[in-house]
Amino acid sequence: MPILVMKFGGTSVANLDRIQRVAKRISLEVAKGYDVICIVSAMAGETNKLVGWVTETSALYDGREYDAVTSSGENVTAGLMALRLQEMGVPARSWQGWQVPVMTTSAHGSARIEEIPTDNVLRKFAEGMRVAVVAGFQGLSAEGRITTLGRGGSDTTAVAFAAAFGAERCDIYTDVDGVYTTDPRICESARKLDRISYEEMLELASLGAKVLMTRSVELAMRYKVRLRVLSSFDEPSDTAGTLVCDEEDIMEKKAVAGVAYSRDEAKVTLLAVADRPGIAAAIFGPLADAGVNVDMIVQNISEDGTTDMTFSCPVDQVEKARKAVEEARRRGDYSFADLIEDQGVAKVSVVGIGMRSHAGVAARMFKALAAEGINIKVITTSEIKISVLIDRKYMELAVQALHEAFDLDKAG
Amino acid sequence: MPILVMKFGGTSVANLDRIQRVAKRISLEVAKGYDVICIVSAMAGETNKLVGWVTETSALYDGREYDAVTSSGENVTAGLMALRLQEMGVPARSWQGWQVPVMTTSAHGSARIEEIPTDNVLRKFAEGMRVAVVAGFQGLSAEGRITTLGRGGSDTTAVAFAAAFGAERCDIYTDVDGVYTTDPRICESARKLDRISYEEMLELASLGAKVLMTRSVELAMRYKVRLRVLSSFDEPSDTAGTLVCDEEDIMEKKAVAGVAYSRDEAKVTLLAVADRPGIAAAIFGPLADAGVNVDMIVQNISEDGTTDMTFSCPVDQVEKARKAVEEARRRGDYSFADLIEDQGVAKVSVVGIGMRSHAGVAARMFKALAAEGINIKVITTSEIKISVLIDRKYMELAVQALHEAFDLDKAG
Repeated sequence: MPILVMKFGGTSVANLDRIQRVAKRISLEVAKGYDVICIVSAMAGETNKLVGWVTETSALYDGREYDAVTSSGENVTAGLMALRLQEMGVPARSWQGWQVPVMTTSAHGSARIEEIPTDNVLRKFAEGMRVAVVAGFQGLSAEGRITTLGRGGSDTTAVAFAAAFGAERCDIYTDVDGVYTTDPRICESARKLDRISYEEMLELASLGAKVLMTRSVELAMRYKVRLRVLSSFDEPSDTAGTLVCDEEDIMEKKAVAGVAYSRDEAKVTLLAVADRPGIAAAIFGPLADAGVNVDMIVQNISEDGTTDMTFSCPVDQVEKARKAVEEARRRGDYSFADLIEDQGVAKVSVVGIGMRSHAGVAARMFKALAAEGINIKVITTSEIKISVLIDRKYMELAVQALHEAFDLDKAG
Repeated sequence: MPILVMKFGGTSVANLDRIQRVAKRISLEVAKGYDVICIVSAMAGETNKLVGWVTETSALYDGREYDAVTSSGENVTAGLMALRLQEMGVPARSWQGWQVPVMTTSAHGSARIEEIPTDNVLRKFAEGMRVAVVAGFQGLSAEGRITTLGRGGSDTTAVAFAAAFGAERCDIYTDVDGVYTTDPRICESARKLDRISYEEMLELASLGAKVLMTRSVELAMRYKVRLRVLSSFDEPSDTAGTLVCDEEDIMEKKAVAGVAYSRDEAKVTLLAVADRPGIAAAIFGPLADAGVNVDMIVQNISEDGTTDMTFSCPVDQVEKARKAVEEARRRGDYSFADLIEDQGVAKVSVVGIGMRSHAGVAARMFKALAAEGINIKVITTSEIKISVLIDRKYMELAVQALHEAFDLDKAG
């Protein structure tokens, strides 16, 4: 029988009533003929409670014990879900990470899945089991310790199972009903997308559309796992949600699939940096070491042996960035004339695989912003994305203007 | 280094403050030179919460899923305890049942420990770890599923580890400070015992002194594990609590070690039962099948081919007992003239290994009861115990009279 992976997050299994509702939804897929692998998170709030206990007990905690404690919430949900399914007459059993076993690296708290042997679960399917309920977010290290996968780990578990078992699809149930052309809170005409490519989803996710964690999308892309994002609170439907899939599965390709934004950005410019080979590494190495998440980087052409270097980072990391830069300068790593900060910027991006074949996307974007009198401070482009930094106060206006300029309110 | 097993129940680890206090206590034993195996229960209330969720989800639950869910509370405590110990500079790590692994039978919910391999934990001790924190109450079946040991399971875990590792002692920390000569709520002069033999402890436990579960005492007796029962709320002291040990380790043997009671008993008498070989089996087989916990059994000598058969059981099982007896009579299993119930009795027992060598214990007991005008309805004796059924209203008086008659208020 074909295998379907279904993943339910913490709010979808927050109490026994919701677990019952989810079980009903799983039974509908079983009735359609699927063998289901169901990945569950901890009941909403449980993991935070456990994390609170750990950090209160030990500020500099041992990651192995952190993982042993925080993984227990998923085990509870998995057992309860299996029981509820059995109660409905659906043959089911729970699997904790170590029972599968989901083999991971030993990077406790942010382990990566290395292997998922399929034989144990497949044998049970062959014996008549219809649903394998798997505790998400957790695995087993080669040392025999429990590991956890870090934020969004259950999504990663789901995609990894779908890849390992060659599942027909991986349905990620969450509390939003799909991926939108932009944030509906900012733009009223935002529209749910039926399909989106992995590449676009990655760009939208990393730009702030927090529906799916980047890591799970990367994994899905690598193994060509068809991913569907949908809400566990809507009525079951075959066309619900958004399918994240290969570019080739998307018929009509618009130039732009969506408009993303990131509100709290800062811009830092080093003026007249003495240029030499390796200068970029000299600047951004110490920033990375200091834990600054540098996003956009722009370097103007070098004149008279000096260059201007601009980068953006989250506004609450500016302080850290400045310190790192000044220390490096004191050490003599490099020299520059002045450092200019702008803490009042936001980033707005248009994303779309269609821009590979559609010419003039950048021009259309800049024109739309100019028509609203919005000044562009920094521009960066990649193959499927164009991002600009603008004054923060124009962010909403820019999103709305771009959404309209690229006809994103219209289907097809 | 010598190994000490320390077990802490749910009230001893009910919150982070108490976990800290327990960790401090463990560190004192480590400082004395012990390698410690610490067995922990779930934080008070956690297991009940989980059991509630399971039974609400599925009335006729799958025991394997029940165990998968209910075992998670111990995992949380084990991790937190290890973290707290590390925070205090004591090298420690947690072990879940399957990690040791604590191999058990597959009787989910009431599994029995079959084997505890010591190599993994001993290797860690050799590497410098000083405390192995083990999640109590749980194990692993040969099928690779999580099992739980049932009520009092963490005590059993502790004793089994002490036996497997040849521990110097197994300290069971609880919310009472030891084993008493009788219930202090009934008898003001009740005195804490410094030592008690396994056999006496077994008789006292099964008679209602609910300090230690029978199963863990049996296990301790079989493997000669020296058990100490003490309170985690008292100041640490080497002489705290009561040592449950081999008879030979007890110097002065009084005739009687303690007085036990069981308040809500009932007495059922079958009059003029037609006697024949196998009649006892014919009567008590169906009672066992009906789930009646028959305690005392007395059969008078047979006259004229008939005999009177009396037994006691908990008062809330009398109804069930009567039905079972009457059904058996209808089926023609046996015949009797009449059935008499007395729902107003209590059992009082004196227990002591000393009565093997001290003559006249029974006579002294009956005399003490007679002096108070208390009528004895049924008597049974075993090698180290004499039990009587009396009117319930005289129970407290009987306990006090016997406590005094056997000088239990006096030490030594």
